[in-house]
Amino acid sequence: MQSTMQDVPLLISRILTHGSTVHGSSQVITWTGEGEPHRRSYAEIGARAAQLAHALREDIGVRDDDRVATLMWNNAEHVEAYFAIPSMGAVLHTLNLRLPAEQLVWIANHAADRVVIVNGSLLPLLAPLMPHLKTVEHVVVSGPGDRSLLEGVSAQVHEYEDLLAGKPTAYDWPELDERQAAAMCYTSGTTGDPKGVLYSHRSVYLHSMQCNMAQSLGLTDEDTALVVVPQFHVNAWGLPHATFMTGVHLLMPDRFLQPGPLAEMIEKQRPTYAAAVPTIWQGLLAELTARPRDVTSLGNVTVGGSACPPSLMAAFDKLGMRVCHAWGMTETSPLGTVARPPAHAVGTDQEFAYRLTQGRFPAGVEARLTGPGGERLPWDGESAGELEVRGPWIAGAYYNGPDAEPLCPDDKFSEDGWLKTGDVGTISPDGFLTLTDRAKDVIKSGGEWISSVDLENALMSHPEVTEATVVAVPDEKWGERPLAIVVLQEGSTADFPTLRSFLAEEARIAKWQLPERWTILPSVPKTSVGKFDKKLLRRQYAAGELEITLI
Amino acid sequence: MQSTMQDVPLLISRILTHGSTVHGSSQVITWTGEGEPHRRSYAEIGARAAQLAHALREDIGVRDDDRVATLMWNNAEHVEAYFAIPSMGAVLHTLNLRLPAEQLVWIANHAADRVVIVNGSLLPLLAPLMPHLKTVEHVVVSGPGDRSLLEGVSAQVHEYEDLLAGKPTAYDWPELDERQAAAMCYTSGTTGDPKGVLYSHRSVYLHSMQCNMAQSLGLTDEDTALVVVPQFHVNAWGLPHATFMTGVHLLMPDRFLQPGPLAEMIEKQRPTYAAAVPTIWQGLLAELTARPRDVTSLGNVTVGGSACPPSLMAAFDKLGMRVCHAWGMTETSPLGTVARPPAHAVGTDQEFAYRLTQGRFPAGVEARLTGPGGERLPWDGESAGELEVRGPWIAGAYYNGPDAEPLCPDDKFSEDGWLKTGDVGTISPDGFLTLTDRAKDVIKSGGEWISSVDLENALMSHPEVTEATVVAVPDEKWGERPLAIVVLQEGSTADFPTLRSFLAEEARIAKWQLPERWTILPSVPKTSVGKFDKKLLRRQYAAGELEITLI
Repeated sequence: MQSTMQDVPLLISRILTHGSTVHGSSQVITWTGEGEPHRRSYAEIGARAAQLAHALREDIGVRDDDRVATLMWNNAEHVEAYFAIPSMGAVLHTLNLRLPAEQLVWIANHAADRVVIVNGSLLPLLAPLMPHLKTVEHVVVSGPGDRSLLEGVSAQVHEYEDLLAGKPTAYDWPELDERQAAAMCYTSGTTGDPKGVLYSHRSVYLHSMQCNMAQSLGLTDEDTALVVVPQFHVNAWGLPHATFMTGVHLLMPDRFLQPGPLAEMIEKQRPTYAAAVPTIWQGLLAELTARPRDVTSLGNVTVGGSACPPSLMAAFDKLGMRVCHAWGMTETSPLGTVARPPAHAVGTDQEFAYRLTQGRFPAGVEARLTGPGGERLPWDGESAGELEVRGPWIAGAYYNGPDAEPLCPDDKFSEDGWLKTGDVGTISPDGFLTLTDRAKDVIKSGGEWISSVDLENALMSHPEVTEATVVAVPDEKWGERPLAIVVLQEGSTADFPTLRSFLAEEARIAKWQLPERWTILPSVPKTSVGKFDKKLLRRQYAAGELEITLI
Repeated sequence: MQSTMQDVPLLISRILTHGSTVHGSSQVITWTGEGEPHRRSYAEIGARAAQLAHALREDIGVRDDDRVATLMWNNAEHVEAYFAIPSMGAVLHTLNLRLPAEQLVWIANHAADRVVIVNGSLLPLLAPLMPHLKTVEHVVVSGPGDRSLLEGVSAQVHEYEDLLAGKPTAYDWPELDERQAAAMCYTSGTTGDPKGVLYSHRSVYLHSMQCNMAQSLGLTDEDTALVVVPQFHVNAWGLPHATFMTGVHLLMPDRFLQPGPLAEMIEKQRPTYAAAVPTIWQGLLAELTARPRDVTSLGNVTVGGSACPPSLMAAFDKLGMRVCHAWGMTETSPLGTVARPPAHAVGTDQEFAYRLTQGRFPAGVEARLTGPGGERLPWDGESAGELEVRGPWIAGAYYNGPDAEPLCPDDKFSEDGWLKTGDVGTISPDGFLTLTDRAKDVIKSGGEWISSVDLENALMSHPEVTEATVVAVPDEKWGERPLAIVVLQEGSTADFPTLRSFLAEEARIAKWQLPERWTILPSVPKTSVGKFDKKLLRRQYAAGELEITLI
């Protein structure tokens, strides 16, 4: 029995139309580095998004599901591209300007981008790539920057403002299938080629509603959101779409992401909300310690990407900035959890503990834990397993190029279509997620899992240990066992039995989890982004390059 | 280009599963009239909804899209029915116990209800109808009440608790099409037969997300919601579904809807939110004036159904209860607008004016105004037209029985599928709706519209006018013109020219809107629900039964 409700598709064009009419006076404020920031109303953004769509269609010939890439900072023009490109039916492809050049080239070619809209300030990055971008026919340049860098490229070069000038300020946005691709984002896989996630109009729309729920980020038109998290990374956590649903003002830092300018933006523009990764907050805290500023406007701060150290969270509490964890990934749009403490914990000792978790699953994200043997584990706050998630804004496949079926590799999606996150953790009975490890790093010992992160943290809590990492190594009897790799302070006399006793007695690590294999290094090798390079260490162990003591 | 996102349907069973796990400790609190109220956790509701679904399937044989009706107050068992029936794939049909018996019979037969779940306290209402309910095979009775009233009926009678006892507390909810019918509700059309609206799983899910947005009702798990608006009327404004998404506690008054018990519930259970029509609040205010109680917990109150008088709003402001208008109808699920003042108006003189509007359109509800000649009118806060709305939780047709196509009468849906609300009003540039009249009552004079309500309010502001109403009557030159019908205070000497001058000079009514036709009556005839009976007056005018003075 069909319902009698209207069949209105959930489209990004509807978010744009709503934001630019009902909330037409709300503003996108873009930092310019000097003087007053640039302000553009949502009504103007709406008119200019229509002009951009006309330009892309009429001057550049964008058709159907052509990919239009952006290589841009967070600014008003990037917001215009966010809405114009999917609304006209094309696919927005945000290029991550932090990736190595060869990955950027691989990704743009894989996506078959026809057009790149680029900030002038990023031409030094784009220009050298141009000869390798096989499908790019048009480059559109926005904002200040040296255009001469593009001399001699085979693609046609356009000025963003020239393209828009004189175009109609309304566009007859097509009624698309809500499941059609709207935007794409590649994961920066540390192993193998990057993988493309294709968001749909439906997934973006639902994710935006979710962000706006009071239980979630809870923003209203009384808020101004400082969006530090880049638009080139998972849709800036969905904020530009979510804010156009509710009229939240957007404060965009453009390329001014250093602690000094961020502190100045906060003091002068008084945002009520901000979103960024912990390293940004760490830098801002140092800046505020050195040069105090009034940041009291900022009551609500979302931290994601990696866990916020408790000390940082406490430091921000003191400044009146309330940090709230959120967890997600490119494949989850990204909002997967938000660590809003449950009502009964507010004001109690439990509150801070809840805030240190990754957060609670919202309606729309279903979660389950899979144990070492593939079994489902209970939500008891103790059983650790790999987190699998399902929902309408969660990826069920990767984009495998225009002529191939979506890729569904065994290691990322379950047979029944859930996303295997690669994260290992526990879920409490009331739906709070605590991540303890990455699935590739966890030690699978005799049908049980040992968290490498727990052992590392325990080791590093020893006063004479500077750094420590733990990796899984093959073991005939148990399958895998932990190998402890420690860096000792200069002059330390701690030996392995002492450290092992410390783990057992002081850090209360269960006996069966204690490492038998130990080694000392002058420093732990790191990856390009500063993480412990466990892959290299496992390879060195396998090649017999590490000097191992058995105890 | 299809996206790579999971294709997870938006189902009511997902809301239930989320609420009964992640928010399993949240509670449905049902008032019992004496002693402690009855408390049931969301986890228990989830288990019992599964038991109810098993009972309906296995004991009663509910299959496919069978209609299962409820004739119930707001209570925990009604919440169980709300989730169990649609989740198993059947259709929940909430019978409006305030309708005249013959309408209830017509509706139940039209919907072809197979089962009725009834509160024992409502058996005196149901029993006499039973011989006329042609399709009802099973009656399930819940809660106290005289079962002997059902003796001799041909349908099979069951006890709710007996049916549930021993059934499994989990149910393998089917993966339905999200566009499938989930629940139905009939409008109580004052003209013609009632019309059925069939909500879909999709529309309920999206409407719930909308309710939970911070910009909308903005509830979180820190809230307790007193749901006075009945579950038998437009899904209790969507609250039971919305609260299961976020863990808001539900406070259900059952049959205790009188001002005394409501005041006691508020004082003792300290809800933070409530939803009801103005008459309930009017009664509560009188109660609180007579017997003051502590109602300070109630910060957030939604009023809908009809406009809240400004004096009532101000009175509740003084008590610390913040009243917020919302507008909607059965066909809109119902949330169509919410009168949360825009950020710039908060704390200014404009704030109260914004709160007196019907409210602002949320993302998901598109609105347009159609003028007397069918033309689109601007959102300028002045042009009055009929409101038409579109969106995924708005009806596009009526249910016309199992064997017929959905009904799409010209007068309720536009050719391009929008709902014609029958309400006349203006929309401000920032999307706030102000209703001025019903389309059937507005006076269509020479291609312009005159609001009958504006004229009535102006007339009634004259100190010697007790009551006044204005209806459209045919006019050769202008098509229609207003007829003023006034009731004067005893001993008043006001004559028509005086009243006409008052309208022009004191009430500032435009000259072309002033009535030429006037009559005096001892009282204005009313409909059964207490509204001015304009239909009767128009008929009396046409039949020459009113004594008209032309001035």
